[in-house]
Amino acid sequence: MKVDGVVRRSIQLAADGRSVEIIDQTLLPHEFATRELRRLADAVEAIRSMRVRGAPLIGVTAAYGVGLQMREDPSDTSLKRAIDELLATRPTAVNLGWALGEMRSALSGAPLATRAERAYERAAAIGEAEVENCLAIGEHGFRVIEALRERRTEPGRLNVLTHCNAGWLATVDWGTALAPVYLAYDRGLAIHVWVDETRPRNQGASLTAWELGQHGVPHTVISDNAGGHLMQRGQVDLCITGSDRTTSTGDVCNKIGTYLKALAARDNSVPFYAALPSSSIDWTLSDGIAEIPIEERDGAELSHVRGRAADGGTIEVAILPASSAVANPSFDITPARLVTGLITERGVCAASRGGLVGLYPERAAGASQA
Amino acid sequence: MKVDGVVRRSIQLAADGRSVEIIDQTLLPHEFATRELRRLADAVEAIRSMRVRGAPLIGVTAAYGVGLQMREDPSDTSLKRAIDELLATRPTAVNLGWALGEMRSALSGAPLATRAERAYERAAAIGEAEVENCLAIGEHGFRVIEALRERRTEPGRLNVLTHCNAGWLATVDWGTALAPVYLAYDRGLAIHVWVDETRPRNQGASLTAWELGQHGVPHTVISDNAGGHLMQRGQVDLCITGSDRTTSTGDVCNKIGTYLKALAARDNSVPFYAALPSSSIDWTLSDGIAEIPIEERDGAELSHVRGRAADGGTIEVAILPASSAVANPSFDITPARLVTGLITERGVCAASRGGLVGLYPERAAGASQA
Repeated sequence: MKVDGVVRRSIQLAADGRSVEIIDQTLLPHEFATRELRRLADAVEAIRSMRVRGAPLIGVTAAYGVGLQMREDPSDTSLKRAIDELLATRPTAVNLGWALGEMRSALSGAPLATRAERAYERAAAIGEAEVENCLAIGEHGFRVIEALRERRTEPGRLNVLTHCNAGWLATVDWGTALAPVYLAYDRGLAIHVWVDETRPRNQGASLTAWELGQHGVPHTVISDNAGGHLMQRGQVDLCITGSDRTTSTGDVCNKIGTYLKALAARDNSVPFYAALPSSSIDWTLSDGIAEIPIEERDGAELSHVRGRAADGGTIEVAILPASSAVANPSFDITPARLVTGLITERGVCAASRGGLVGLYPERAAGASQA
Repeated sequence: MKVDGVVRRSIQLAADGRSVEIIDQTLLPHEFATRELRRLADAVEAIRSMRVRGAPLIGVTAAYGVGLQMREDPSDTSLKRAIDELLATRPTAVNLGWALGEMRSALSGAPLATRAERAYERAAAIGEAEVENCLAIGEHGFRVIEALRERRTEPGRLNVLTHCNAGWLATVDWGTALAPVYLAYDRGLAIHVWVDETRPRNQGASLTAWELGQHGVPHTVISDNAGGHLMQRGQVDLCITGSDRTTSTGDVCNKIGTYLKALAARDNSVPFYAALPSSSIDWTLSDGIAEIPIEERDGAELSHVRGRAADGGTIEVAILPASSAVANPSFDITPARLVTGLITERGVCAASRGGLVGLYPERAAGASQA
């Protein structure tokens, strides 16, 4: 999507054809800067420190991380080490394991001399597939938006509420939750996005607001507390969020607070959709609350806030009493019963095993594995 | 309650017997400083800039504000001006109107020479009544906590979640939502409080965490997004919040985001109580969503965060893209159907007209007015 009027992606090969260029998302929204990953350690650090984040982008970055390591040492030991190190960076995102599994399959039987080249090809293919998936999600989600718009009796803009960042910055291009929004905007539909701030890391305030603003999409940032009130007052027509991990039964594991918005949506008859590529579906799980481990992140994310000071410099300030304890669970589970539908690259389905298997029949019990 | 081991109140007469000493709550939790209100304009400024906040404390401050003005000019014009200016400071809190009504009744028929003294007496009496009410709320709420504790099969601390600040800083002493917590703690019951950060003004992070910490009550600060997750995992036994305004039918208007916690509590069978002095009940209202105007505050509360920098100074940083719009509704309505009970100074009742009239029979239709 657009940055300063120029179309770009969240991850791309650098001019040398070897390094991988990412956007350092920890600097947004105050500074736009790219960063070159030259070695495995750079990729590990970029994922762990959340310079890149979002399930699809993490997967692609990890795939390129394997490629960077294969350039240095294509041995089996080296391959295993790369995969192990990358896998350990973030515990929740299922795409990470999926992408690394793809890399392992592509490389483990290949002659050492071809591994680096194969790894880059495979990483690029995973990236392209993510873009295609996002665009397909966008088309399916766009039809949801169009249908809602046709049903509305009053004219005016359609109001979409989103939580965290499931835009192009979280993927390679287009985004998941925001892909339908970008398509609607590009096609001239009057649309406006309520952007949840998304504490504690403020991904809504710093990333979603930034990318919507750069592309020109009208939006308003609100506190995470405000969405229920807006729904009570009829100011939200539709909620769309991403999903970091989706069970085979349609439970959605997404950024902490998603569950609260889904509850408010249900209480106010606002449709609530999660948009996700099927790579984020964990077909082995059937109960999100019981089975998905929730990442507990550093309390400093909550106790300290990073922002731009009056002098233009970016600094961090403490907002808590020094003696107060902090807990920082990073994801929650939105039970399938609260989800109106899942928007996938193959179409929109009910958040249920039946709905998902309808779109992915190869996953039905007894179906031969693809 | 205690600050640095010393018992104090949120508002008290200064040593000169004339000025009114408040705690400048905008400086907490990083700096504890008191401030003397010497004129009406000081009281107006203190309320408007939220140096004092919380429905009961606003009411008492306004009452003293009238007293400060009566010292300067006890005329009818001056009295009217004081009441009008104070009434315009904050649109939502019903205590403000109630306290100013009390002052008008006490003063409008009184000889000019006696007005200043009467005003101080009346303001002090309002303050004492608030303390008594809070202590009574504490006792009634303590029995709710005790009963929950007796029903628990597993030992260990009882976990209470609260939103915003309804502690002694929001009242004169004890607090409303926190009064039962302080009593439980003082009586040796193992209790722990989950403190919602409460964006955008961070009253949980900066005030509730501070006052609990000063008094020694175990607590953990969480993002506003986290409460639903904690309830899903069985880590919350009870929610207690305050109420800025309560309808005669039990709808609770409180800090933005309260409604989301009530939804999560209902979804996870966690009892949800609002604690409030009857002065915050608006007996003329029967539908919170339709009838209560919601204060829209300055977007800078959301776009800028105040905190302590590494050098110890307190500064403000911007966290949003400069071009993003911001909306900042400050309260929401928790419908009575989501409220397990209302904890008032006369006891605990159902959040319904019947429940409230049971405790306040003088408010029944047809009852003679007290």
